[in-house]
Amino acid sequence: MSRFIFAKRMDRMQRSTIREILKITKRPDIISFAGGLPAPELFPLKAFKASIQKALTQDGPASLQYDVTEGYPPLKEFLCRWLKRSGIVCKPEQMMLTNGSQQALDLIGKVFLNPNDRVLVENPTYLGAIQSFNAYQARYTSAAMDQAGIILEDAEKKITRDHPVIAYLVPTFQNPSGVTMTLERRKAFLVLASKYHLPVVEDDPYGYLRFSGRVQPSLYSVAKGKGVIYLSTFSKILSPGIRLGFVVAPQEIINELVLAKQAADLQPNSLIQRAVFHYCSDGHLDRHIPTITHSYKMRAHVMLEAMRRYFPSEVQWIPPEGGMFVWCTVPKHLSTSALFKKAITQKVAYVTGSVFHANGGGDDTLRLNFTNSTPTQIDEGIKRLGKVFSEAL
Amino acid sequence: MSRFIFAKRMDRMQRSTIREILKITKRPDIISFAGGLPAPELFPLKAFKASIQKALTQDGPASLQYDVTEGYPPLKEFLCRWLKRSGIVCKPEQMMLTNGSQQALDLIGKVFLNPNDRVLVENPTYLGAIQSFNAYQARYTSAAMDQAGIILEDAEKKITRDHPVIAYLVPTFQNPSGVTMTLERRKAFLVLASKYHLPVVEDDPYGYLRFSGRVQPSLYSVAKGKGVIYLSTFSKILSPGIRLGFVVAPQEIINELVLAKQAADLQPNSLIQRAVFHYCSDGHLDRHIPTITHSYKMRAHVMLEAMRRYFPSEVQWIPPEGGMFVWCTVPKHLSTSALFKKAITQKVAYVTGSVFHANGGGDDTLRLNFTNSTPTQIDEGIKRLGKVFSEAL
Repeated sequence: MSRFIFAKRMDRMQRSTIREILKITKRPDIISFAGGLPAPELFPLKAFKASIQKALTQDGPASLQYDVTEGYPPLKEFLCRWLKRSGIVCKPEQMMLTNGSQQALDLIGKVFLNPNDRVLVENPTYLGAIQSFNAYQARYTSAAMDQAGIILEDAEKKITRDHPVIAYLVPTFQNPSGVTMTLERRKAFLVLASKYHLPVVEDDPYGYLRFSGRVQPSLYSVAKGKGVIYLSTFSKILSPGIRLGFVVAPQEIINELVLAKQAADLQPNSLIQRAVFHYCSDGHLDRHIPTITHSYKMRAHVMLEAMRRYFPSEVQWIPPEGGMFVWCTVPKHLSTSALFKKAITQKVAYVTGSVFHANGGGDDTLRLNFTNSTPTQIDEGIKRLGKVFSEAL
Repeated sequence: MSRFIFAKRMDRMQRSTIREILKITKRPDIISFAGGLPAPELFPLKAFKASIQKALTQDGPASLQYDVTEGYPPLKEFLCRWLKRSGIVCKPEQMMLTNGSQQALDLIGKVFLNPNDRVLVENPTYLGAIQSFNAYQARYTSAAMDQAGIILEDAEKKITRDHPVIAYLVPTFQNPSGVTMTLERRKAFLVLASKYHLPVVEDDPYGYLRFSGRVQPSLYSVAKGKGVIYLSTFSKILSPGIRLGFVVAPQEIINELVLAKQAADLQPNSLIQRAVFHYCSDGHLDRHIPTITHSYKMRAHVMLEAMRRYFPSEVQWIPPEGGMFVWCTVPKHLSTSALFKKAITQKVAYVTGSVFHANGGGDDTLRLNFTNSTPTQIDEGIKRLGKVFSEAL
């Protein structure tokens, strides 16, 4: 029996299944496709070390002092110029720095969601978003997806049924499905969101990790910023451990997010922001991104080749054009949760797809990460997983 | 008219008056006693630069990768050993790292507070705590203080009247009053809290900044950890810009805080935690604290001397034994909010005391910070402020 009485919202909060899986998969003999971790051997240690030295040397005590809640102005100005190249046009006043995109999701929940308010999400959707919104006692309206993104008819039917108050989408190299929304679908979805006055949260952590296909403009740029809250992060293109992301939104929304951030932890890290500013403005970011995408392209290729070779024909998947994940569907009579234990016996791990389904289901799906294993590990791991599937069929 | 509909909790959230005051007081001609900023010239830039280099060099990619939500284990182990010297006995499992104490306050609000739940606070109390708890639609039960801390009779009367669900105290060098709770009062308050099953949040950012008087044990150590959530931070003893604090609490509470932290921003900064670990375990922290307290003792002395010299006899204050603030009371017929404009004309700034009163009042009080001005500035600023008071009387 608990000696303490916690708030009602805590009933909804559970430990992240993924973070718990990661503990199991830390065993060195297991080949893990479970995490969403970038390749650590690609981290730009030397350049970032120089950048952080520069921050401490050139900016001096200011790099260790309190600073404004909104974020370090020169970094915001750099990001505005940088985002413009991708068609995201915004002023520094429309931007706030956060502790990774996860904090942006938490603050968005705080700012928009009353208990039992609904969030329109893709089915499947990013688990971390569900966790953030759960803390505000949200409910979910899940719209089906196909290979072009969220299905509009299903979304509209459910919007009119459930009246969600915000929409949350990962339109590019979605986590977990790897799907990228087509331009046509993006335009049509924005028309739908506008029709129902639905603010759209566009989560874009992977957009710069494209290794094939054609670049799609962000929902933010298609909508010219109207009604869209754009989130991105340095986690996948520089380092997740430094916990730095950013939000771009109409200024009215940024004002509320700043209030929420101030109450939550006062401000982003002064030193890290300055180091990242130097890193970016010295050109390291632009030089580093092709290195990562090149490597991830190769790893994705190895994974997809191995899947073709080792997976039984009943298992299906969608080849991604970028990002970090391949999504698989197994025959309906199999359970990826049940198979997980067998996979661990075979020393290979994945994430069961059900955790990404906000309203249940999806036990015939699973997510594979290809960025945190070497090509040799990928080939061997997929071989082991193929064996697990074949034996189960 | 707003184009967006925000959650009800946002009605309670306002920009921090202090952070807004800080914007005014950034004018270089103003001597500001308004902020709660440490002296930037004392930041251990060289030692911290070496520590962060060590983290990147010795720990390599792990310093930039994702890590556990609870905090970097070696840093937790160091802190457990370090806290033991002050009588705080805990296991690493009873500790979580946060983005400064402010995040701990936010997460405590998330974990404990339903809308309209009451928090027992000292009157006056720390503004940042009110802001964090406001986000969870808390109400406040303010108990009066004297020079020995919270007044027990008033606290008990109000506990039985209002049934608060948690108590929030800053027992040592309180922000804003500078008051330190006596040992007798600490013991008696813990008896009271236990009688009414009231979890006690002990916020201790300043405890190590003692320059006179006798060390008082923390509420946590007096209670042997039972029912106490202890918060502290590196903000005042190393750097606030690196955003690193820690919570010590019964493991059952830590478990809930970890869930809340995971949803809020996944984990503390991997690199900063490692840098702080090296900084601490190389002995820099223990060498640095006496440097700060020596300087703050001198600044406090200069401020108190100047107050005796320049303030009219109607203005009263409590000489602090440590920390960063002196609290002043002016005659009832004066308003420190109204006098603020005159002070700015005289190029000196403070924080009006009313902002620290959770349920209104306190317009005859003000807070002065002595850590972020040089002795010469302190003497000149107090002289100017003395003139403002004398003219108003």
